[in-house]
Amino acid sequence: MILKNKKWSCLLPFLSLGLLLFPSSTFAAKPITQLESQPVPARPKNIIIMIGDGMGPAYTTAYRYYQDNPDTENIEHTVFDRLLVGMSSTHPTKSEGIVTDSAAAATALSSGIKTYNGAIGINKHKQAVRSIMQLAKQQGMSTGIAVTSQVNHATPAAFLSHNESRRNYDEIALSYLHTDTDVILGGGQQYFSSELIEQFKNKGYQYITDVSELNSLKQAKVLGLFADKELPWAINEKKAHKLSRETQTALTLLSNNPKGFVLLVEGSLIDWAGHSNDIVSAMGEMNEFANAVEVAEQFVRQHPETLLVITADHNTGGLSIGANDVYAWNSALIRGVQSSPDNIAIAALESHDWQDIVSKQLGFKLNEAEINQLAAAKKENQDIFTDEINKIISRRSHTGWTSHGHTGVDVQVFATGPSSALFHGHQDNTDIANNMISLLPTNQNNPNP
Amino acid sequence: MILKNKKWSCLLPFLSLGLLLFPSSTFAAKPITQLESQPVPARPKNIIIMIGDGMGPAYTTAYRYYQDNPDTENIEHTVFDRLLVGMSSTHPTKSEGIVTDSAAAATALSSGIKTYNGAIGINKHKQAVRSIMQLAKQQGMSTGIAVTSQVNHATPAAFLSHNESRRNYDEIALSYLHTDTDVILGGGQQYFSSELIEQFKNKGYQYITDVSELNSLKQAKVLGLFADKELPWAINEKKAHKLSRETQTALTLLSNNPKGFVLLVEGSLIDWAGHSNDIVSAMGEMNEFANAVEVAEQFVRQHPETLLVITADHNTGGLSIGANDVYAWNSALIRGVQSSPDNIAIAALESHDWQDIVSKQLGFKLNEAEINQLAAAKKENQDIFTDEINKIISRRSHTGWTSHGHTGVDVQVFATGPSSALFHGHQDNTDIANNMISLLPTNQNNPNP
Ligand SMILES: [Zn+2]
Ligand SMILES: [Zn+2]
Repeated sequence: MILKNKKWSCLLPFLSLGLLLFPSSTFAAKPITQLESQPVPARPKNIIIMIGDGMGPAYTTAYRYYQDNPDTENIEHTVFDRLLVGMSSTHPTKSEGIVTDSAAAATALSSGIKTYNGAIGINKHKQAVRSIMQLAKQQGMSTGIAVTSQVNHATPAAFLSHNESRRNYDEIALSYLHTDTDVILGGGQQYFSSELIEQFKNKGYQYITDVSELNSLKQAKVLGLFADKELPWAINEKKAHKLSRETQTALTLLSNNPKGFVLLVEGSLIDWAGHSNDIVSAMGEMNEFANAVEVAEQFVRQHPETLLVITADHNTGGLSIGANDVYAWNSALIRGVQSSPDNIAIAALESHDWQDIVSKQLGFKLNEAEINQLAAAKKENQDIFTDEINKIISRRSHTGWTSHGHTGVDVQVFATGPSSALFHGHQDNTDIANNMISLLPTNQNNPNP
Repeated sequence: MILKNKKWSCLLPFLSLGLLLFPSSTFAAKPITQLESQPVPARPKNIIIMIGDGMGPAYTTAYRYYQDNPDTENIEHTVFDRLLVGMSSTHPTKSEGIVTDSAAAATALSSGIKTYNGAIGINKHKQAVRSIMQLAKQQGMSTGIAVTSQVNHATPAAFLSHNESRRNYDEIALSYLHTDTDVILGGGQQYFSSELIEQFKNKGYQYITDVSELNSLKQAKVLGLFADKELPWAINEKKAHKLSRETQTALTLLSNNPKGFVLLVEGSLIDWAGHSNDIVSAMGEMNEFANAVEVAEQFVRQHPETLLVITADHNTGGLSIGANDVYAWNSALIRGVQSSPDNIAIAALESHDWQDIVSKQLGFKLNEAEINQLAAAKKENQDIFTDEINKIISRRSHTGWTSHGHTGVDVQVFATGPSSALFHGHQDNTDIANNMISLLPTNQNNPNP
């Protein structure tokens, strides 16, 4: 039996009307089929693509158990369970090996071609390739991105820019000026000089730096940069729901175009938490992304001419649910941690009573071995102290990691709306892009002439 | 573009006619849809359920790269890619935690109920629950199992027996006498006394102990036990294809019943290799299982009134493709290893020139650190020597492991044939069983009265 979790979900207030109209239990079992049986056009007017950076299958599974209400007999389903339709391979171009980075994967997802790791919107011969965003613009559609990293980070960059290296952050930021993108929301103030901001304003962009300003926007264009670099960990501002608010605003503004829109939403920091082997922040970012997916899912229910496709660019960290020969995963311990391990480290290193701070924030008493482990790390530096806190949480919760980098397992694909059947079953990440591109208003588009 | 690998696949000779009639490229892209557009009954006459024990998403992904032909530009698809339709959660009953064992998972898959780890066909109150095999028998259908472990191991046991513990091997073997199962194929001679074998013969069973005898069988019933315990690693008998031959024979014999059949096929030893963190034997067992799935897939093409459902009971070992911060997986190195690491250890420990033996079997020259590592292990025992060989292979190939036990990531679901759409998207392992049970001839079945 499938129950929607009432108590634990973090739906935003502006969703409540929609939820009354469409009680989520209606959609819990086989939502795709039900939606497709409604009279909707075969081709979508709007396309929303959402990427959980680093969100391999163990992340969505772990998130189900993390958000589960322990007081019910059933394991409550997540939005990912409702929308799962298939899986995707993620490898870069064959000569590059099997494990991709975010740049090659995002180029595959934006343009339908395989390339080398680090490449932003260019092929292995370093030629620019047309992205779905460019093709949409050619059709008079609106485009937007809403992310939690700096807006010029690899994933959004591969949708909007062309560069031989993801590391050329300043060039990539500058290039956005010429993309005519209608909505650009995320972090990255440090890459946008006041001069560059002026140039955006001259092109008609509104520039905002606080998430609260999203509500007052009446129309595109907008450049919203809400942090110097990436946004803060979601776990450290539990009620901010920044990605959901970015997503809702982007959908509202882009909907003004009668020709439709293409929107990219990225839960960017799932990957960053995975690189740090930080399960607490990873689950916080999964919750942030899941809430944004629910915003998009709700939009599709209200605008059934919209296709929603969700996937990951790759897996990060080799996360496993259970580790070290123990058949268990202590999700309650992870849920009990009050803030991100890097924040706990900062607070501890500033305090005279660091053991008390750490224990309180972790939600459990440190044992002697753990105190010794942290006392030694404290003499090193903040990063090592943070690492050791993460190791304690992983060990106690039986969370496994094999790497601080990416790994090559296939990722899941989730979809709903018109033509979502194209994404059922197994596919490659380039198939996802090529299928989305084939749904743009004219099918004469050749993404890679 | 999707290409079926010609050079590397291990199709059995008896498949060749079928392959000529149905070139596999026809089925490569979206086989489910194509098959379902043929006139086939809504309900299947026959059900084949295949379980890759321990076969989490990283195993099927790794197998794609392992079997890929390096000389082509594309990554060739596997049978798993062709048949993927969804994923399944695997947790045992909620009070037991999140990570299942094979017994609880197989009880979920055979009977549609959640239970505790170790339980064979009984619920958490230790009451027997009706399995799909029992329900099929009540409808006059034939039933069979074909596995690579001993036939009384946890997975087949949960389909045929009821016992409070998977460890009661002798009780479970004895109980098979009263199940009326038509085909029982696998290992496990040590659990079947000559007295018990006599009792099977008195019930009309043919008893065989060599795989070559499979060809001469004209009809059920048959008890075939081809090893004292589990079958040898597939990697050590590359041309034996024992699970494929078991599967083909079971399908042929069970097809004689006009009322249809239910057959369980298990690639049992994928899990055993995972427990040992042995990627070489794991890939060999994946190949063995994939070949058996191709036999079943071919049967469905020729008998379109057959439903084929494939899944895993859980993930094992926390396998990752890439590890230790390296963005690569050296599948060529794994393919180059000549036999299973435990066999390499045995050969080395019997030899005067162990370094030469090990290097030749591994397919690469050991470096000084590796020689020292193995020399130290050699002084301990064979198991430790084997472990160290596995560690060298994993380190060099960038294969990651987090456990010698199971982990909780969702597993994939693959299906084709009538009503296979029931298995699309996300589901629980109990849903898989309940959906299969709902397809048996009468829908008045209540699996758990
Ligand atoms: Zn990353
Ligand atoms: Zn196992």
